[in-house]
Amino acid sequence: MTITGQLLIGASAVTGQHGQIYATDPATGERLEPAFGAGSRADVERACALAAAAFDSYRDSAPELRAGFLDAIAANIEAIGDELIQRAMAETGLPRARLEGERGRTCNQLRLFAKVVRDGGYAGVRIDPALPAREPLPRSDLRQRRIALGPVAVFGASNFPLAFSVAGGDTASALAAGCPVVVKAHSAHPGTSELVGRAVQQAVAASGLPEGVFSLIVGAGNEVGSALVADPRIQAVGFTGSRAGGVALMRLAQSRPQPIPVYGELSAINPVFLLPGALAERAEALGRAFVGSLTLGAGQFCTNPGLLLAIDGPDADAFVAAAAEALGAAGAQTMLSPAIHAAYSDGVAKLARHERVTTVARGREGDGPNRCRAGLFATDADSFLANPALHDEVFGASGLLVRCRDAAQLQSLAESLDGQLTATLHLGAADTELARALLPTLERKAGRILANGWPTGVEVSHAMVHGGPWPATTDARATSVGTAAIERFLRPVCYQDLPAELLPAALRDDNPYGLPRLVDGKREHAANR
Amino acid sequence: MTITGQLLIGASAVTGQHGQIYATDPATGERLEPAFGAGSRADVERACALAAAAFDSYRDSAPELRAGFLDAIAANIEAIGDELIQRAMAETGLPRARLEGERGRTCNQLRLFAKVVRDGGYAGVRIDPALPAREPLPRSDLRQRRIALGPVAVFGASNFPLAFSVAGGDTASALAAGCPVVVKAHSAHPGTSELVGRAVQQAVAASGLPEGVFSLIVGAGNEVGSALVADPRIQAVGFTGSRAGGVALMRLAQSRPQPIPVYGELSAINPVFLLPGALAERAEALGRAFVGSLTLGAGQFCTNPGLLLAIDGPDADAFVAAAAEALGAAGAQTMLSPAIHAAYSDGVAKLARHERVTTVARGREGDGPNRCRAGLFATDADSFLANPALHDEVFGASGLLVRCRDAAQLQSLAESLDGQLTATLHLGAADTELARALLPTLERKAGRILANGWPTGVEVSHAMVHGGPWPATTDARATSVGTAAIERFLRPVCYQDLPAELLPAALRDDNPYGLPRLVDGKREHAANR
Repeated sequence: MTITGQLLIGASAVTGQHGQIYATDPATGERLEPAFGAGSRADVERACALAAAAFDSYRDSAPELRAGFLDAIAANIEAIGDELIQRAMAETGLPRARLEGERGRTCNQLRLFAKVVRDGGYAGVRIDPALPAREPLPRSDLRQRRIALGPVAVFGASNFPLAFSVAGGDTASALAAGCPVVVKAHSAHPGTSELVGRAVQQAVAASGLPEGVFSLIVGAGNEVGSALVADPRIQAVGFTGSRAGGVALMRLAQSRPQPIPVYGELSAINPVFLLPGALAERAEALGRAFVGSLTLGAGQFCTNPGLLLAIDGPDADAFVAAAAEALGAAGAQTMLSPAIHAAYSDGVAKLARHERVTTVARGREGDGPNRCRAGLFATDADSFLANPALHDEVFGASGLLVRCRDAAQLQSLAESLDGQLTATLHLGAADTELARALLPTLERKAGRILANGWPTGVEVSHAMVHGGPWPATTDARATSVGTAAIERFLRPVCYQDLPAELLPAALRDDNPYGLPRLVDGKREHAANR
Repeated sequence: MTITGQLLIGASAVTGQHGQIYATDPATGERLEPAFGAGSRADVERACALAAAAFDSYRDSAPELRAGFLDAIAANIEAIGDELIQRAMAETGLPRARLEGERGRTCNQLRLFAKVVRDGGYAGVRIDPALPAREPLPRSDLRQRRIALGPVAVFGASNFPLAFSVAGGDTASALAAGCPVVVKAHSAHPGTSELVGRAVQQAVAASGLPEGVFSLIVGAGNEVGSALVADPRIQAVGFTGSRAGGVALMRLAQSRPQPIPVYGELSAINPVFLLPGALAERAEALGRAFVGSLTLGAGQFCTNPGLLLAIDGPDADAFVAAAAEALGAAGAQTMLSPAIHAAYSDGVAKLARHERVTTVARGREGDGPNRCRAGLFATDADSFLANPALHDEVFGASGLLVRCRDAAQLQSLAESLDGQLTATLHLGAADTELARALLPTLERKAGRILANGWPTGVEVSHAMVHGGPWPATTDARATSVGTAAIERFLRPVCYQDLPAELLPAALRDDNPYGLPRLVDGKREHAANR
């Protein structure tokens, strides 16, 4: 496949006329060909018009058609072959194995959402049969299903150029729900975006779907993204990225004549609680394992463990010593973009010179541009509580250990935390009571609570939650990973006394799609499930 | 029970010191005793502190305890007896039969949510078992449940002093979800509010729940309500009322350091499509039935049919003639408050003098204060499309008939409508194709679509949706009536590899609450369900 630098507006490929964008290889600083013609407000307008025109037909397409479409996207992405991996490597500096794994995850995710569509539980069908003889008033026939919200704007993330980008989790779940999608490509990986975008575009055509189901727009600056969120046809937004960017989109969405939901996954420091029993049992092993999670992918994960909490003492010292040794041996890794590297360097430098913070260890220096030199820092709980800046995320491999006086201070520190994507407990045999006391706080603070593991690594499954209270995300009621992500893009509609010939197929008595249903409050399965 | 005019803060009853409020009997204009001491910011602070203190314990209480609590509230409300009906009649001007029916609905609603809690499906339990042997990476044990959002602020509505007020749908669904509730009483029915509030307060004590599970505050002006929404411990807001009030609360909630969801049910004109076949078959009967729905409860329903759309011609004329005759005979009814009556009179007067609007008929004059004299008006589709003010709700018994040239104009008029709570189709045998063409538009515009009925009358059941796209509500993803209303107050949390002894009971392998679960993507029922 040739990367042309074009926008994909419905079935068309057009060269944007609103300036040019080039990708940069962060490992070398070199400019990558070709030039991408940036889109304008008129391109956004055209994509949104096509999306709106496609909506009614797409949202009520048969489940098997929509599921087959998602499967076809996965197959088309795989069919691109090594060109996709090579382009993504060049645009992101991420290593081959990581990107091959991410491609597998992306395609599995699309196929999992195809299964969700075939299963049909997401439609939330509820039927309350009429009760014509009820006293004092009869009950009407009432049937509820959930329908797609409308066209969705998706903003690709820089740190997962496949799994959280053009055909990533937001797009897969929105398409599964029946929402056309307009993607704003991340400017750091426009070539990867185009390759994947063409895979989606071809699947739209091969599935016989209306062209407006998918468009992909490259934009310089914020104009395209702002125009997209402001467009009255867009009904929801999926975003993964910085807090500043996500909050700006949320404010824009709230200020529209019709406010719309923004599902923004913003920032987190993902606290890890090293409970005393765990440290007593395995401080050194924990120190080494922590560094493995901290430095994975140059620390460029939303779930990077940026905060460690421990009760001060010899076991905590042993943990620190082991972590410092491992970190000292950690090689520098290329970060995703010059901007991310600059922000990381700035954040680490601020920690290093903070008067209440000590530098425990740094990783090895790199020998090229945009290299992440990992860092571990330490402070005490009183200083952490008194300095809100120490609660901020430093995106990249940077960790802050907070030493607490005792379990009570550990608990009050937990209570002081902002909302998080994850919270992790490392437990020994003696820690059950302390963990039990911490759990209610952690449930209020985080979308996912782990024991004896590390938060990096987000399974795409039914039970996963990748979300959490503000400011980890803009909407704690949602997850952006896992099958429950589809619920973000649905709303319920009730049909009262509709004649059978006008009922949507999903709500017909004969249940042609075999959907699971709640009939008069009782769960009913189709026979073949 | 004696009405004391006190605030109910947790288990206490205290006399508010921030001014006094009296209820008014709208039928006579007379002031009703006693005086209610209005609450201050300090009272809000105290109620929110108690709610936060109660939250962790209440949200994780056993389902049977929470269900029994909801049942106890219903029993306590019934035990108040006729005093509640008499006070509500005096404060609202609503007739006895209506309020007795509303009391039944309120208690049934509480008992239905008790069933929802016992059923446990709302908890959304999902278990993905560990796959330790999976290649290339093992899968952790992942378990998801939905937990309560946190303390909820509920604003009672004036038009349902029982079913949408202190122990109405918002409170019942929030309490069922595990959220403590702080109610801001509607100033039009403070005595009704206190009676019901004491019923809840007694149920909290009798159930052995922490006192902060419920508080009730009377406030003068907006100060108490604003302080409540701004309080950092409040995590969601339920509101039913005017568009201006709801939008103000939504803006306030969005501008908090931590934004929170507002479920505001604001305004709707509930379009009724009189399709040609229906008018040909039964224009006169439809005209009479329409007036019955229009004037029910002085038109003071969120689902009042304020807009009629028909294709012009003799059948439409026959409908109008029958409606005009019925309306001319309709007696004046007392409205809920002087403010609502004044707004109604103003809205009707604006319609009457609008140059593109004709007055079809008015109801009979009333002989006391605050009487609603029903009105039916007419215009043509071009004028309706050109005058956005004609799309606004006039709260009360006021209907506007829009005459269309043909089916195409009817369809384009449907497309021009704002979001609605309901859309109604009156169908004859010849109307199936036109209805089918209208349905996709109506699905995008409304939360509930009815055929051959009237939108007033909202069943409290599993399949009901009382909600809809902006500006009908602030969140189209939600319903404020029916069992799905509980979903507004929940968020998912995932537990990864938690030791069995730390797992919440809802997620344990032995499923002690007998919850329905999704295990590895497959639905599983408890044996006894």
